[in-house]
Amino acid sequence: MSRPKNDTFLRALLKEPTEYTPLWLMRQAGRYLPEYCETRKRAGDFLKLCKSPALACEVTLQPLARYDLDAAILFSDILTVPDAMGLGLYFAEGEGPRFERPLREEWAINNLSAPDSYEHLGYVMDAVGEIRRALDNSVPLIGFSGSPYTLACYMVEGQGSSDFRHIKGMLYNRPDLLHRILSVTADAVTSYLNAQIDSGAQAVMIFDTWGGSLSHAAYREFSLAYMQRIVAGLQKEKDGQRIPCIVFTKNGGLWLEQIAAIGCDAVGLDWTVDIGEARRRVGDQVALQGNLDPNVLFAAPEIVAAEARKVLDSFGPGNTGHVFNLGHGISQFTPPESVTALVEAVHGHSRLLRK
Amino acid sequence: MSRPKNDTFLRALLKEPTEYTPLWLMRQAGRYLPEYCETRKRAGDFLKLCKSPALACEVTLQPLARYDLDAAILFSDILTVPDAMGLGLYFAEGEGPRFERPLREEWAINNLSAPDSYEHLGYVMDAVGEIRRALDNSVPLIGFSGSPYTLACYMVEGQGSSDFRHIKGMLYNRPDLLHRILSVTADAVTSYLNAQIDSGAQAVMIFDTWGGSLSHAAYREFSLAYMQRIVAGLQKEKDGQRIPCIVFTKNGGLWLEQIAAIGCDAVGLDWTVDIGEARRRVGDQVALQGNLDPNVLFAAPEIVAAEARKVLDSFGPGNTGHVFNLGHGISQFTPPESVTALVEAVHGHSRLLRK
Repeated sequence: MSRPKNDTFLRALLKEPTEYTPLWLMRQAGRYLPEYCETRKRAGDFLKLCKSPALACEVTLQPLARYDLDAAILFSDILTVPDAMGLGLYFAEGEGPRFERPLREEWAINNLSAPDSYEHLGYVMDAVGEIRRALDNSVPLIGFSGSPYTLACYMVEGQGSSDFRHIKGMLYNRPDLLHRILSVTADAVTSYLNAQIDSGAQAVMIFDTWGGSLSHAAYREFSLAYMQRIVAGLQKEKDGQRIPCIVFTKNGGLWLEQIAAIGCDAVGLDWTVDIGEARRRVGDQVALQGNLDPNVLFAAPEIVAAEARKVLDSFGPGNTGHVFNLGHGISQFTPPESVTALVEAVHGHSRLLRK
Repeated sequence: MSRPKNDTFLRALLKEPTEYTPLWLMRQAGRYLPEYCETRKRAGDFLKLCKSPALACEVTLQPLARYDLDAAILFSDILTVPDAMGLGLYFAEGEGPRFERPLREEWAINNLSAPDSYEHLGYVMDAVGEIRRALDNSVPLIGFSGSPYTLACYMVEGQGSSDFRHIKGMLYNRPDLLHRILSVTADAVTSYLNAQIDSGAQAVMIFDTWGGSLSHAAYREFSLAYMQRIVAGLQKEKDGQRIPCIVFTKNGGLWLEQIAAIGCDAVGLDWTVDIGEARRRVGDQVALQGNLDPNVLFAAPEIVAAEARKVLDSFGPGNTGHVFNLGHGISQFTPPESVTALVEAVHGHSRLLRK
């Protein structure tokens, strides 16, 4: 199977020359799009939307119909894996995700096992296949998973948290129990991402949303080590094409050198890092993805364009190694016109910079 | 007036030799102490507790009665300054702080002015005086304020926020308005801290809780620049004693060099930074304060002690320049016995290291 017609995203990740800087947006299929809200309403609730391959495919394609984006990303939730482990994912109205059975008892942790990705997460693999067919080789499809530590945060806390005191209490008091959770989860994520690759994902990304809440030492031991294990276990090629892997730890700017060394192809950056400085620190080893503050998209179009140009200018000269993105998911309150301004600015200015 | 009998904290900040590493804890007078909850109940609500000099003095002293801490910190709320500006601070039951009149309209921003610290915040100055008398020169008293950007977050959002979209929207769309808010607030904070110093505070700390949510460039322009202005405007001596100033930006680990250069005596660190590395980066210029993850205090006493020793060992040899603290405020769920273990470990191990 050949590369997609627009393979700029894949080439940038693999540090092959590109004519412009490709971009996609974390959470690009989301509530800022009226058509997404429409489909979600039709689905009934968020989980039904995730679990229906047809609807997941529909919303995955929506931002690509509106904007000249260089990649699609599978529409799903990061908590599908612990849900498949039997923790009982649900969404309380107007609140974030919750688990019916938070993981805190030793017996429950000992009983934890990695789900079969095809049997228990077949709806995700079906969605990947359906999206690939619908994309018809136009742009690449990104598969993804939460990192083991990020998934464990939700599994142990039972919901989002501002202090993570249950999981941190376990980390310091019973590191053996947390290592057991992380080990099983890392196996589950490896199998899950490999199944996505087998089903058609052309790149994969690991979202480590909460690793940045750890101390420098705990980050290495409880988050990075498990992402390294996953990266080592990933299928590297499919049909003769390299499958690049992106690792993103939010608030991980202090640890870029360590992240870049785990064998991934690219490192995601949030907006607290100057991307030019990040490139000087690790740019020989990996491609970089990022890193505009999503709140810039609340500004007028000319300001959006100016801020996007600053990121490109900071990355500096060269014709590859950068995938433009936000430093975090796009806000549900974003005016859709802002994204038009952003896409034009990134594509236009990066072409100019290559001249 | 002479230095307090135990001036270890002041000496560590000024990089004079000390026999052990001094410590205090952010939010040390707080809900983890049963006696604090008792006083608060008696006060009726949190704001009344802040606004009563007698009760503020009572709770300030409570942790010192229990533990061998090396400094007291004024009990107050960071939002007293915007409250004195007329925004109407209140606490909704079971929720965080809120303002009745969030600051979003241009006319309201133009009308904003710095309050007179003695007239409008006299209750704080009275508390400082009362606490100093009660301390009877045993340990030094720390005064404090929120940073202008952190205060502005609450002033513009009207409450805490997970995305800061109102203030960030203003930052990118109407930076002139945000600069006006920050400029007035910086003047107010300068006057507020100088009034605390005049009333008896022997060191001051600026808490920049939310500066770390900014991009690298916005942090310099909208947070750090205003803290620099405050530091430049602070009274440096009182009664022949130097008044040291500590600046703490949570999640500011990437920017330590810049923070250390604004003229403060010490830089606060959260737990994401290795304090030894921080020392190598900026330790010639400033003292360092930090940086244990407050969640360590949920662990057993011997683990608390071991983690505290790791911080001291990482800071490394030398007999000054480190004030031990947590990387953030102590959690309300902390078992009080954990603090006993922490204080013993810090004092004991740091004495050993000096041998």
